[in-house]
Amino acid sequence: MRCVLGLFEGVVTGAADGYARMMEKPACTLLHLGPGFANGLANLHNASRAHVPMVNLIGQHPNYHLRHNTPLTSDIEAIARPYSKWLRTASSAQQVGRDSIEAIVASRNASGQIATLIVPADVAWSEGGVVAEWSSSPKSALPSTSVIERSADMLRSGLRTAILLSGRALYGQGLAAAGRIAASTGAKLFAPYPLVRLERGAGSVPVERMQYVLEQAIEQLKEFRQLILVAAESPVAYFAYPGKDSVMTSPECEIHALATSEEDSVGALDAIEAALSIRRARPTGERRNRPSLPNGQITLPGLAATVGALLPENAIVVDESMTSGRGMMAATKGSPPHDWLGNTGGSIGIALPLAVGAAVACPERSVLCLTADGSAMYTLQALWTMAREGLKVTTVVFANRDYAVLKREFSYLGVGDAGRRALDMFEIGRPDLDWVNLSKGMGVPGTRVTTLEGFAKALQEGFESGGPSLIEVLL
Amino acid sequence: MRCVLGLFEGVVTGAADGYARMMEKPACTLLHLGPGFANGLANLHNASRAHVPMVNLIGQHPNYHLRHNTPLTSDIEAIARPYSKWLRTASSAQQVGRDSIEAIVASRNASGQIATLIVPADVAWSEGGVVAEWSSSPKSALPSTSVIERSADMLRSGLRTAILLSGRALYGQGLAAAGRIAASTGAKLFAPYPLVRLERGAGSVPVERMQYVLEQAIEQLKEFRQLILVAAESPVAYFAYPGKDSVMTSPECEIHALATSEEDSVGALDAIEAALSIRRARPTGERRNRPSLPNGQITLPGLAATVGALLPENAIVVDESMTSGRGMMAATKGSPPHDWLGNTGGSIGIALPLAVGAAVACPERSVLCLTADGSAMYTLQALWTMAREGLKVTTVVFANRDYAVLKREFSYLGVGDAGRRALDMFEIGRPDLDWVNLSKGMGVPGTRVTTLEGFAKALQEGFESGGPSLIEVLL
Repeated sequence: MRCVLGLFEGVVTGAADGYARMMEKPACTLLHLGPGFANGLANLHNASRAHVPMVNLIGQHPNYHLRHNTPLTSDIEAIARPYSKWLRTASSAQQVGRDSIEAIVASRNASGQIATLIVPADVAWSEGGVVAEWSSSPKSALPSTSVIERSADMLRSGLRTAILLSGRALYGQGLAAAGRIAASTGAKLFAPYPLVRLERGAGSVPVERMQYVLEQAIEQLKEFRQLILVAAESPVAYFAYPGKDSVMTSPECEIHALATSEEDSVGALDAIEAALSIRRARPTGERRNRPSLPNGQITLPGLAATVGALLPENAIVVDESMTSGRGMMAATKGSPPHDWLGNTGGSIGIALPLAVGAAVACPERSVLCLTADGSAMYTLQALWTMAREGLKVTTVVFANRDYAVLKREFSYLGVGDAGRRALDMFEIGRPDLDWVNLSKGMGVPGTRVTTLEGFAKALQEGFESGGPSLIEVLL
Repeated sequence: MRCVLGLFEGVVTGAADGYARMMEKPACTLLHLGPGFANGLANLHNASRAHVPMVNLIGQHPNYHLRHNTPLTSDIEAIARPYSKWLRTASSAQQVGRDSIEAIVASRNASGQIATLIVPADVAWSEGGVVAEWSSSPKSALPSTSVIERSADMLRSGLRTAILLSGRALYGQGLAAAGRIAASTGAKLFAPYPLVRLERGAGSVPVERMQYVLEQAIEQLKEFRQLILVAAESPVAYFAYPGKDSVMTSPECEIHALATSEEDSVGALDAIEAALSIRRARPTGERRNRPSLPNGQITLPGLAATVGALLPENAIVVDESMTSGRGMMAATKGSPPHDWLGNTGGSIGIALPLAVGAAVACPERSVLCLTADGSAMYTLQALWTMAREGLKVTTVVFANRDYAVLKREFSYLGVGDAGRRALDMFEIGRPDLDWVNLSKGMGVPGTRVTTLEGFAKALQEGFESGGPSLIEVLL
């Protein structure tokens, strides 16, 4: 077993998520009592929305100690329940082997879910442990024939149809099938804004990501009269706004779920292909087309073009760049093939941990971690793990010194201008964070760039270094 | 209202705890949805054990948005329940003023507790808010006469008696009364290892803190045949050990609770004094006696003596120095009067946030924050808040580059030596954290010291600077 230390539990749960997204199998977190587990909850929220397999192992006091109500006593089951689809407290050394297998099996149920096993100290230190027999997870079920038929009918109807893919339908065999279906029927493929993992780049099946901003997403979907969901939720806005509906589809759009996130979405897509019984068209892959390297003053389009120009083949991009990175996907769609991982649950502070997990899972691939400064501050301890493990992660911090998304969200509420005190809660300068020092403090070489040439140079060096590095981009 | 921004919610809840410990009234945290609240849980665990008043205000989606199960949807009540003694979701703009008053009142019940008010966005943005009338919190009740009489009888019995004080019995009027009782009856005063707030230093009532290590604590208590608890729990070990009892008192010791943490402990002590109807003796305060300034190589006793020699009058010491700081209290007991705040719940990562809250509460006092490196990494974002608010906090990081307490706890289990993989989970060097860079990165000037003279100079400069500073002590 490879043990990877994080200096804060949010790093650990986020890294387990990143590992699972790339490996389709669970990592195990080892957390300490109720508060230690609580520190990992925010990224468990994100992981639960990513439908990844994960096993949490939580140490607990023995029962005979718990009754004294010592300082670290807490009701761990109560803390764990909201995000654990499977939850158990081990009762004996004899049983804990069996419990562990069941936790792993449970975590691999459906597309994946969070399983939490609480292990009292006396269960851990007692003799009599038994290595349990492995049992395999039940394969997730196909949707019913009528659901598949209905989807096929919709695709044959001639009405403008969108297919919103998530989970395993966004890479590998699943995306390939979806690509052929789209090419054969004229349907358009979308990915949700909260992106688990998308295979993209030159030659890949074209998939359009939903926009974050409600009005822009409504615009994306307005031409469609039918929407088929594949392991995806119906598209809605992150937040509610006074007097606005949260739904992104037009009222005339019929929404049909081909497969839930718990069903076999890849098998469902194969079944549709068979049901359509049309000649399989090969999709036209994205055209290889890198932007040329820009130079001069830092601009968001310039940064995106630089990434598009330099992204290495087979890279993994972890994206929590928030308001600063909204042009990144457009600029990289013709770059060499790569995977794109996003924030699935909206709880910020996932990028650095997710990059740790992806890099542990895929040591031969370059990981590019795009993060906003406000988000990165949540779990900056992840940099230390990158340094200790020598992970190939190039982290780019977009330092706009704002919770810019909060300012935007505030403006959407239509309650007027924020006063000075409210703005002070949105602005994270005064003092400015110095990411080069923060990074060095954790053992990761860092550099600050103030021009696009500087950014390109630092990015290239980061990719070539074979280890972790950090680039602070002053915006 | 003064708004203080933290860049991670654990900073915010820990700061609210520190504020409440010094002010005896609640600070209000403003947290964002379920995951934002979850990030604050570990320090809420500590706060719940400190019995401080605190109000959490948590933003939630409107109900009509929640039903879409958007990415940030979670069951906030389920996440909040384990640590909220009062919990409500506001239902309308008309009622939310009333809800807020009730939350504040509830938080001030008894000695103090955590009250959580969840406010859906539409409640916040709707018209019709009503400023509710203030209502005062019910005063916490005195223990029954028979309980007070029994305590008085015990104190009159001539048996060796210890009094374990916590909460408001450890400072001000409560400690003064306890001091007179002890001086009159020969009882000895103790404070628990998990220390909320202790008034101490030259002239103060002598109180001995319970030791962390089980055997040492048993030794402290073994002579006592009676133990009276005042707002304190019966003393037990943090952790359980194979074949050992967790209890620190001897089997012959009678334990009697004069007042629970929910009762009026100060009033109870006054009542005992009256019941004893003996001539009030004035306690002999701790003798003014500073250690002389040591020099040369860094040693733990040398560091403690330096703190003892230089601690300013009326300082607030926040102590999460773990294994490195166990000599600190002995070395400072004759220093000028000061308050000592500890970690009450055993969830590490409270020191820096607690120091923020104490400094906001008492801007005229010097705050000395003693922290281990492993602990400080949990919530290092607090340094930024110290810089932004210009708080008078001198932070000392004891960099032993180990979770030393875990190594010790592991050795107590008697399961043999830890293997290399286990040790890798206990040792936080490779790479070494550079606290000077981390501190600078957050806008707090930092320095590294390698001699006792250097430590003394940096400490003196920190106290005199009138703002935040950080000293990394290489151990």
